[in-house]
Amino acid sequence: MTDKKLATDSYKGVRDFYPEDASIQQYIFDTWRKTAESFGFERYDASILEPAELYKSKGAENEELVNEQTYTFTDRGEREVTLRPEMTPTVARMVAGKARELAFPLRWYSIPNLFRYERPQKGRLREHWQFNCDIFGSDSIAADVEIVALAYQTLINFGVKPEQFVILINDRQMMERLYVAIGLTPEMIKSVTHLNDRKNKISEAEYKDSLNKITNDETLAEEVVMLLDKSDEQTDIVIGLEELGIANVIFDKSLARGFDYYTGTIFEVFETDENGKPIGRAILGGGRYDNLTSMFGGEPISGIGFGMGDVALCDLLEKNNLININSLMKSTIVTVIPEMSEQNLFAETIAKQIRELGISVSTDIGTQKPEKKKARASDRGSTFIIVVGEKEIESGNLTVKNLLTGEEKTGKISDLMTFLKAK
Amino acid sequence: MTDKKLATDSYKGVRDFYPEDASIQQYIFDTWRKTAESFGFERYDASILEPAELYKSKGAENEELVNEQTYTFTDRGEREVTLRPEMTPTVARMVAGKARELAFPLRWYSIPNLFRYERPQKGRLREHWQFNCDIFGSDSIAADVEIVALAYQTLINFGVKPEQFVILINDRQMMERLYVAIGLTPEMIKSVTHLNDRKNKISEAEYKDSLNKITNDETLAEEVVMLLDKSDEQTDIVIGLEELGIANVIFDKSLARGFDYYTGTIFEVFETDENGKPIGRAILGGGRYDNLTSMFGGEPISGIGFGMGDVALCDLLEKNNLININSLMKSTIVTVIPEMSEQNLFAETIAKQIRELGISVSTDIGTQKPEKKKARASDRGSTFIIVVGEKEIESGNLTVKNLLTGEEKTGKISDLMTFLKAK
Repeated sequence: MTDKKLATDSYKGVRDFYPEDASIQQYIFDTWRKTAESFGFERYDASILEPAELYKSKGAENEELVNEQTYTFTDRGEREVTLRPEMTPTVARMVAGKARELAFPLRWYSIPNLFRYERPQKGRLREHWQFNCDIFGSDSIAADVEIVALAYQTLINFGVKPEQFVILINDRQMMERLYVAIGLTPEMIKSVTHLNDRKNKISEAEYKDSLNKITNDETLAEEVVMLLDKSDEQTDIVIGLEELGIANVIFDKSLARGFDYYTGTIFEVFETDENGKPIGRAILGGGRYDNLTSMFGGEPISGIGFGMGDVALCDLLEKNNLININSLMKSTIVTVIPEMSEQNLFAETIAKQIRELGISVSTDIGTQKPEKKKARASDRGSTFIIVVGEKEIESGNLTVKNLLTGEEKTGKISDLMTFLKAK
Repeated sequence: MTDKKLATDSYKGVRDFYPEDASIQQYIFDTWRKTAESFGFERYDASILEPAELYKSKGAENEELVNEQTYTFTDRGEREVTLRPEMTPTVARMVAGKARELAFPLRWYSIPNLFRYERPQKGRLREHWQFNCDIFGSDSIAADVEIVALAYQTLINFGVKPEQFVILINDRQMMERLYVAIGLTPEMIKSVTHLNDRKNKISEAEYKDSLNKITNDETLAEEVVMLLDKSDEQTDIVIGLEELGIANVIFDKSLARGFDYYTGTIFEVFETDENGKPIGRAILGGGRYDNLTSMFGGEPISGIGFGMGDVALCDLLEKNNLININSLMKSTIVTVIPEMSEQNLFAETIAKQIRELGISVSTDIGTQKPEKKKARASDRGSTFIIVVGEKEIESGNLTVKNLLTGEEKTGKISDLMTFLKAK
């Protein structure tokens, strides 16, 4: 032991989950899981440790990401290791690794924690958790519609109303055709796409200025702006979603998404203001990629998926009072309260017998007075209390009290079981 | 993209969880959670990233551990970070950090992943998951009894029978008294404890040789052996466990445990051979520590807890045929099968309506023939299938088939709901 006292702070930019926060986290994970499984998605998982090269081979932008924004270090065996910053490369690796054995189309989901080495700021931590859902091996538009419907249903299952969010959709392939038609070069298209991804973070003047620079032609820049403004397309996916009763959808040609690997449908979901306009950062985002597994060799396998982070989601739920902490903090049904520490062990034997009926039960073996313990059992939400003292041990007769109704019943433990089970 | 193909292997010593393995993992986590909550334990969680100093201050053995067996690296802000190798320092940090607000005694559990940089070998991976349970702030023997009872009940809830495992118990404080009584110095006591922790890994001759070296006195070494052999104590905790009906307990004076921070009760659980003798590595282990939070300053808070790893547990369950993979791999109740891809979207609308009843449902939007899809739905364990083709879209009449009974029913989707719900 050193004499210097250690700080009790967590590492910078990550979170401690005390029971209240952990119960919210569990509720989020449980809802994600339940929703994904209701669509027939199967769970997969992997380690947070990945070979660094997995992120280096996807192109220049991602190399920058690996070099400057990830936790990458060299292990003692001289291997470069990265704490995964996103799940897509991992799932692509896993799908490619067993491509011959897997029965496509696959519906896979996971709830990984992801790491980014960036300055901690609101809604962006160094570690966060993300709901990842993908359909692999189907080029059908139905897969695109279903994955967006799953994202929609997830928010609905948290109690978010359709009028509180909007789904923005675009199509990279269509955009490429349109851009080529007005005369943009492949290089310009890439730059315009990256610019669009940043458009909410810069002013309109900056945006137009950048566009002029990219096109090097003010008329062409104007045409790009006009093209992006006309966002009234009724695409197959928008029509498909409507058939599923999902109407809070806007086809937005300026939607870009950060990653280069998307090749078709892309989408993001935003909270809306009172006028139905998207606000803030995206709550989730995703898209279709047709060649992500090809870097591992073998047949390319198409996929469409999305990721939804816990931080932005939790902010949204809290803002709209959609988290009921009292109902999430689970208490045991029964609390057995020893009057004095001499009855602690007896309390444990009573607890054991009740637990065997499938009823959750705890003992309060603290050193407080019985009255204090009763108040605490009530505060924590226990339905029943059983106080045990010398008298109870001698007679074998226990009194169970229902804290909700005030009702009491006295008898041998075996006689009390029906009373307890009635709850 | 580079031309060199990437490997699809995971990082060395960690695991990919494909759906089958993930379903086993989820079953283990769910059973841990259910058991802990049935005892009134509350969940907490934290990041895998911890300041390296958290592990350095616990004494020389642990410094060696930090330097040679952990993933420790320097981040870009020149902070030393460690991927947590165990959860106890983290939970001690969290409890110390809010000691004034928390209502003791606390019952806390967590299911963290832990990292050790060691040569991968059977049962020891670089990343594993561990069930961690602790009671903080109670010196009552009832806490010791309860924590062992929780460990016991966890195994029982997985279907392990009491005769298949044994709980070895010892008491560090008692051992110190006994060692002092026969003349061991504090330094010798520490060395003997470490030697005992390794006793199953070395030969009897090596053991005795080491003991002679530590005591530098053959007679004293003999006395240590005699002391350890007499393991017939009926301690309070053994009696307390008996009162709870837990009889597969042996008080074993040679039980040592690796960590120095234990100060009272220590215990480990082993699988038994046909003669009831402990075999293999410990399935779980834990103990009482009375000063773990004091390194953060403030009042020392006592605790007792245990950790149970997923790898050893999974081996035990598989060996005893306690994992039924078919029941763990969840399928959706209903599979909607489009005859051709033109009906994929229609299938999605049918699926949506069924899902709204709370019934899990997937569509098979693959390119296989309907017969192939039917076989697959059956293989995966769907109870119902609904095949949709042009005819079904035109007429609006669907046929649902119960794959278990062969029963079929035809009608509008609204008419079929009762049939589906009957399951």
